[in-house]
Amino acid sequence: MDDLSLTTPEQGSETETPAKVAALPNPHELATQLVAKLCHDFISPTGAIISGLDLLSDPSAQDMRDDAVNLIQTSATKLVTLVHFARVAFGAATSAEAFSAKELNKTLSDVFSTMRATLAFDVADEVVFEKPAARALMNLGYIAGNALPTGGTATLRREETDEAIILTAQSNGPRARLKPEAVEGLNGQPLSDGLSGQWIQPFWLHSVVQEAGGTLAVTLEPDSLGIKIVLPKK
Amino acid sequence: MDDLSLTTPEQGSETETPAKVAALPNPHELATQLVAKLCHDFISPTGAIISGLDLLSDPSAQDMRDDAVNLIQTSATKLVTLVHFARVAFGAATSAEAFSAKELNKTLSDVFSTMRATLAFDVADEVVFEKPAARALMNLGYIAGNALPTGGTATLRREETDEAIILTAQSNGPRARLKPEAVEGLNGQPLSDGLSGQWIQPFWLHSVVQEAGGTLAVTLEPDSLGIKIVLPKK
Repeated sequence: MDDLSLTTPEQGSETETPAKVAALPNPHELATQLVAKLCHDFISPTGAIISGLDLLSDPSAQDMRDDAVNLIQTSATKLVTLVHFARVAFGAATSAEAFSAKELNKTLSDVFSTMRATLAFDVADEVVFEKPAARALMNLGYIAGNALPTGGTATLRREETDEAIILTAQSNGPRARLKPEAVEGLNGQPLSDGLSGQWIQPFWLHSVVQEAGGTLAVTLEPDSLGIKIVLPKK
Repeated sequence: MDDLSLTTPEQGSETETPAKVAALPNPHELATQLVAKLCHDFISPTGAIISGLDLLSDPSAQDMRDDAVNLIQTSATKLVTLVHFARVAFGAATSAEAFSAKELNKTLSDVFSTMRATLAFDVADEVVFEKPAARALMNLGYIAGNALPTGGTATLRREETDEAIILTAQSNGPRARLKPEAVEGLNGQPLSDGLSGQWIQPFWLHSVVQEAGGTLAVTLEPDSLGIKIVLPKK
């Protein structure tokens, strides 16, 4: 069992070499990496809509009209899902804004409809998430689902103590795994190798948890991945 | 004539009160504000595509089929424009990536097609922009066009000396103006009042220029706005 306890710099022992610390994204790069990921996610369904329109306007392809409309429909729905997800997971909103578990379940379920994994959202509908917890939960859910490339179940739970809100994700399925980039990101480490697009969201989750003064721990076992986030109450 | 010389913290005199400095966005907020602006820009054409699809599938609105397809077409084109613009203006790319003036002119012209202002892109097609200059130019052009709400001409120029690349925007037209939020943003000041969506892009431009070790100066006269950016060569 491989237990990686990830704590925030304030609480953990920062023994990284200066070179590693220097390679972490500056404010500027954190923003550009995040926008790059969004652009990457948006361009594919946008391109599919354009393809659907080309098909729709092709006089020699009138028998494919329904296919074209379906392609546009599916892609537009995917875009709506992406924007809704990005707004909560990455975007700013007034700090007063809060989200019900029901809303968050809906947004995440839409995202999971594009994945092989199944979402088990084990939080009562009426529970309210403040912004940092909502943002952490969205990213946690996405990463937990993404860790199941051949399918399985990602279960999300929320507990509360006097001092903290605890969010957990349990991904169970064949070959549940995190890419090395994702582990580095969750650990708050700079990207050493691999794809920045696979690294930025885990790093972003680390950054969200750190910003809220919380901790994040990852447990990897065969066919099982657990992530536990503890967010102190203000 | 109102000449606001905006210099980077390293070079300028930082006499702001600590409270003001503290209110500047942290790395986290810079990213979330930028993503919020993107989501805001993306949601409207995405919604229009969904509306067009609804119209297309309504049996009682078959006479509006062409309108529906046109709406989808226009909105999809707008999305492509937004993603292309965002990728250069806000997104990361490999630092090796460079852009020709021709490409940048095309991307900005597409953006101006959604504005009342006319773009005069006065840079030879074959000039090559490295990433920081390309990013600065995209944001400069957008802000210059946005400063002409009732129309006019935004002229973009590039000069080069031994030490620096100089980018200028000149917006001429009735009621050329910057919103107070935009002035604060260009000045690198926190948002004091008004809409964060109007503030973040000017602040982002300030941040891009500062990151590159450059300076930014704004000149406001009746029906005229000038912005000059000096980026030192590496």
